[in-house]
Amino acid sequence: MNRITELLGIKYPIIQGGMVWCSGWELASAVSNAGGLGVIGSGSMYPDVLRTHIRKCKVSTEKPFAVNLPLIYPQIADHIDIILEEKVPVVITSAGSPAKYTSLFKSHGLKVMHVVASVKFARKCEEAGVDAIIAEGFEAGGHNGIEETTTMVLIPLIRKHTQMPLIAAGGIATGRAMLAAMVLGAEGVQMGTRFAASEESSAHDAFKKIITEIREGGTMLALKKIGAVRLIKNPFFQKVAEAEARGATAQELAQLLGRGRAKKGMFEGDLVEGELEIGQVAALVDEVKPVSQIIEEIVNEYYEALGEISKLWRPLP
Amino acid sequence: MNRITELLGIKYPIIQGGMVWCSGWELASAVSNAGGLGVIGSGSMYPDVLRTHIRKCKVSTEKPFAVNLPLIYPQIADHIDIILEEKVPVVITSAGSPAKYTSLFKSHGLKVMHVVASVKFARKCEEAGVDAIIAEGFEAGGHNGIEETTTMVLIPLIRKHTQMPLIAAGGIATGRAMLAAMVLGAEGVQMGTRFAASEESSAHDAFKKIITEIREGGTMLALKKIGAVRLIKNPFFQKVAEAEARGATAQELAQLLGRGRAKKGMFEGDLVEGELEIGQVAALVDEVKPVSQIIEEIVNEYYEALGEISKLWRPLP
Repeated sequence: MNRITELLGIKYPIIQGGMVWCSGWELASAVSNAGGLGVIGSGSMYPDVLRTHIRKCKVSTEKPFAVNLPLIYPQIADHIDIILEEKVPVVITSAGSPAKYTSLFKSHGLKVMHVVASVKFARKCEEAGVDAIIAEGFEAGGHNGIEETTTMVLIPLIRKHTQMPLIAAGGIATGRAMLAAMVLGAEGVQMGTRFAASEESSAHDAFKKIITEIREGGTMLALKKIGAVRLIKNPFFQKVAEAEARGATAQELAQLLGRGRAKKGMFEGDLVEGELEIGQVAALVDEVKPVSQIIEEIVNEYYEALGEISKLWRPLP
Repeated sequence: MNRITELLGIKYPIIQGGMVWCSGWELASAVSNAGGLGVIGSGSMYPDVLRTHIRKCKVSTEKPFAVNLPLIYPQIADHIDIILEEKVPVVITSAGSPAKYTSLFKSHGLKVMHVVASVKFARKCEEAGVDAIIAEGFEAGGHNGIEETTTMVLIPLIRKHTQMPLIAAGGIATGRAMLAAMVLGAEGVQMGTRFAASEESSAHDAFKKIITEIREGGTMLALKKIGAVRLIKNPFFQKVAEAEARGATAQELAQLLGRGRAKKGMFEGDLVEGELEIGQVAALVDEVKPVSQIIEEIVNEYYEALGEISKLWRPLP
């Protein structure tokens, strides 16, 4: 038990990242059933699709689960109504100010967590009264902070400025990294990449396969002028990189990106023209596995790493 | 004791980063006298200056110390001769292939460590027969790898591919982060930023002061087209960032950089026009202190963090 498992009513302080095109009800309910917190990623769903996923999730698990709500979502009022109507127990807000909806959700009895990439926004979370902060480092997949602070630096910095419940994200796919994040001051971890490559992930098999194949250096933060996002270095990424190197404007980049590329890549499996969002830690993910096995491995490895602490160097008394 | 302290004959597995304009004989000998491995940064020294620093270091400490040798240094043959003639016990090579000089140094009885930022180069280190690998993440100050892999991801990746003695660098300025790096698979740490802001650092006081003042987001990786380097966001950096945003070529950037800017910034204290190289973790460094106190604090904090392991979340049996 710790503050995160108590707050969320879960067995393991492992939160599954809410990812577009990967995390529907199947992934979310599988993670919750396995003892973590499953998260439905609403950013790629129309309101009626979100409602269906929430309802299927409720049928598939009796455990708590969450919906991730990017605050830049165009039909956000509809999403909020659905989350409240369906009595989702936990909401994770991101990509905006925590001051906006935290009190609304809390007045309806939801637990609220907010994703940040800086101390500044961590402080705003505290002021807004969120229940826990999810701090995400530069190495994370998908959309990312502009200051490029890595998990190794971000977690101790935020811990230095607030005593709030803190979950680390970015670069974490194993029990060993989970323990390292705890040593840095986190009380739980959020993992996206590892679950994107799970059997229950709704991503296309071709996308899951390339996650297991890419090696170190296989991703890069791109499109910083229109919203930084970590992508696999596929042919579409190369086009973006070339445009950026020659100084393409935000408008030109938005045009190059167009619409629907994330769906094309991650959901439809177009590895050439699609936008493939994943974290650096994909280099450590070698196999697509069922969620129950992933969680078991993470917990066992965390426990093993704890057991090996006594072998680490220590100063003589 | 562990493999790193044994290999290097030091008390604590703490290596001081060899930094241009910061790490002369005063810093190196202070770190070695305090129980770490002091490192003379030869990259900003003419050969006769390097010889003077080595000789003064030998007079100031009886403990082992090292010289950091960037393999792109123009007068490298002279530097190598001096290192061998002066019987420096440890050499740390960087910015090039470990295959180049490792056997030469080892045939003269030196311990050789090589700095890498990828698994690929870690493997080359193993083939070349270096004694230990220093793996440096994206968050580190100064010159940096092109793949932008962070310490959190890089250390487990390299540990997965080699069982060689491994030192973690990048984002580490405290005993707590040192323990996290050990959990990830390292056996020692290299810290630059924390020692750049020490009393014995030969950097200009104005540079040391700005290290203690910058906050999270205060640095950024720049000049990627001519050799990525992490800089403080001062007016010179802003010029570079503007040039890069409009697609400046490598040639244009080299011209903008010109010559001697690192010296101007870090040694002469020109915070406007100088190139100010420092790591992200400067956000956690709030005070200039003597080296002996820095090392004592790091070791105490490491020990404290070890003691708090029992309070971390653990799975029920």
